[in-house]
Amino acid sequence: MLKNLFDALPIDSTDEAFDDLLNVPGLRIERIVSHGQASAPGFWYEQATDEWVIVLQGQASLEVEGDGNLVVLEKGDHYWIPSGLRHRINSTASDGPTIWLAVHRSPSQQHG
Amino acid sequence: MLKNLFDALPIDSTDEAFDDLLNVPGLRIERIVSHGQASAPGFWYEQATDEWVIVLQGQASLEVEGDGNLVVLEKGDHYWIPSGLRHRINSTASDGPTIWLAVHRSPSQQHG
Repeated sequence: MLKNLFDALPIDSTDEAFDDLLNVPGLRIERIVSHGQASAPGFWYEQATDEWVIVLQGQASLEVEGDGNLVVLEKGDHYWIPSGLRHRINSTASDGPTIWLAVHRSPSQQHG
Repeated sequence: MLKNLFDALPIDSTDEAFDDLLNVPGLRIERIVSHGQASAPGFWYEQATDEWVIVLQGQASLEVEGDGNLVVLEKGDHYWIPSGLRHRINSTASDGPTIWLAVHRSPSQQHG
């Protein structure tokens, strides 16, 4: 796993890159690096896990189903995406990497 | 709660500052801002929750009981502190704020 959030940034920007920083029962912490990618038109994420995200470099905008407004995330902005909340990535910065930290709480942890 | 990790940095640097970014059952995400503080000599943290920390600005060093080496954390470095692991803050940067993000997984979540 990566020892530093800013290590080994992917050179190939064709696809988003996903790397785990921590993976223990019930909790996974992931680095995501985007290079201008967005969700395909009409595609919605609908996840079984709760997710908290923060943008630490770059910029992104999220679309949340049923909410007409885009959620713009700049450096330091964070957002809570409860499981089942349909959302999509509307845009990520095109002029450099956008670095996200995503904290996933798995459902097996929610009935303790 | 703070909307941005870098918002409202404390002006008073006498004490460390703790602010929640998220607090839901089983998961608490906290910003900690240090200004040269360290744990008192002989003091050890021994926590009931698992904690993952990352330094996003500044520098810190941790001491883990039974391990003779200091764990130095620079910007982007992260560290996993399972519950019960005795540790202390050996130092934080004295030339500006050290900004930590701490993810706490509460024990009630560990028996799902």
